[in-house]
Amino acid sequence: MNYCQYCAAPLVLKIPEGEDRERYCCEECDTVFYQNPKNVVGTLPVYQDKVLLCRRAIEPRYGKWTLPAGFMENGETCIEGAIRETAEEAGAKVHVKEDSLYTLTSYKHINQVHFYFRVELASLDFAPGIESLEARLFRESEIPWDHIAFTVVNITLKHYFKDCKNQHFPVRMFDVTYSNKKIKRTLVSES
Amino acid sequence: MNYCQYCAAPLVLKIPEGEDRERYCCEECDTVFYQNPKNVVGTLPVYQDKVLLCRRAIEPRYGKWTLPAGFMENGETCIEGAIRETAEEAGAKVHVKEDSLYTLTSYKHINQVHFYFRVELASLDFAPGIESLEARLFRESEIPWDHIAFTVVNITLKHYFKDCKNQHFPVRMFDVTYSNKKIKRTLVSES
Repeated sequence: MNYCQYCAAPLVLKIPEGEDRERYCCEECDTVFYQNPKNVVGTLPVYQDKVLLCRRAIEPRYGKWTLPAGFMENGETCIEGAIRETAEEAGAKVHVKEDSLYTLTSYKHINQVHFYFRVELASLDFAPGIESLEARLFRESEIPWDHIAFTVVNITLKHYFKDCKNQHFPVRMFDVTYSNKKIKRTLVSES
Repeated sequence: MNYCQYCAAPLVLKIPEGEDRERYCCEECDTVFYQNPKNVVGTLPVYQDKVLLCRRAIEPRYGKWTLPAGFMENGETCIEGAIRETAEEAGAKVHVKEDSLYTLTSYKHINQVHFYFRVELASLDFAPGIESLEARLFRESEIPWDHIAFTVVNITLKHYFKDCKNQHFPVRMFDVTYSNKKIKRTLVSES
C-alpha cells in the first residue's frame, strides 16, 4: 500500500492515536486503512456415500483436487457464498440443511478464515466450471489423498468420513499454521 | 475508491475479464481491487449464572450494552481475536473450551460476519477498557433487553439463556438483514 485510495496522497505507516498497532494512514484526508482477514466459503457436497470434488484449473495447486470454495463477496451471507461457489466451480445445485456449518478454520499466516458447509447434492447434474478441470464424486476409498490441494480440505474430508461412521457431525474447528515451511495442524476443537 | 493504492492512477469500475461483477480496477498497473466482508469476533463470557456485558463508550450505539467484540485483525485466528477483544473491552481473561463457537451471523447489508465464542471468565478481575463505560455481570433477569446495542448480541443472549436450561449449546447460525429500516431476523439454524 503506497497511496490513499480516496485522495492519492502518499500513505504513512504509523500507529494511529488510541490504537496499538501500525496502520497505513493518509495524513492528507485523515483516513486509516485497516487490513483484515478474508473469508473463503465452500461446501462439502454429499451424494449417498460419495463426496463431490473439483480438480483445480487455476493456480495455486493447479491439477489438485479440492472442495468447491472461494472468496466470500460483499452483499452475501456465508451460506449464499458457499452455494454460489459450488455452482461456479462444480456446476452443482445443493440442498442446505439448517445445521450445515461443518468446519471453521483460521489460516492466520495468510489472513484467511475458511468455512465449509455440509450439503446434499440436489441432482447428479453437475459439471466443472471455468476454474475446474473436472468435477467428480468419490467414495472414501477413492479419495486421491496425495493430490488434495489444501490442508483444510484434507482435514475436512478426514473428519467427514470419520463422522459418517456414527452419523454425528458436530462443527469442527481447527486452525492451520505454517512454521519453517512445515505444516503444523492445531486442532482447536475435536468435540 | 478513487485511486490505485499501488500507483495512484485513477481507478475504473468495470467487470474484469473472466469475472461476473464490477470491481475497481487499475488500468495502469493492471490490479483488481476486491472488496470483501469483514469479521467481527467476540465472546460470551460466563461466570456461574451470569454473563459479562460492556456498555459502549463509542459510536455507534454509545451507552448501549453489548458483548465484548471487534474487528478481527490480520495475523490472528478467530478465537485469538475474540480473546484479544475481550481483554481490550472488558479487561477480562477467559478460559476457552474446545467447542466454544456459539453463534455465527452474516450481516450482508453491511458486509460483516460475526462470531461469538462461549467462554468462562477466568476471574472476577475485569474492568472496562477505553471503548467501554462499564463492564458488569448480569443474571438473565437483570439483562437490560431494551438497551442492547446490536441485534446479533440480543439473539445470542436469548439463545444462551434458553440453551442453559438443558445445558446443550449447539452452534447457532442466524443472519440479520435490514429491509425498509425494519429489522428482519432470519434464523438459518435453530437446531
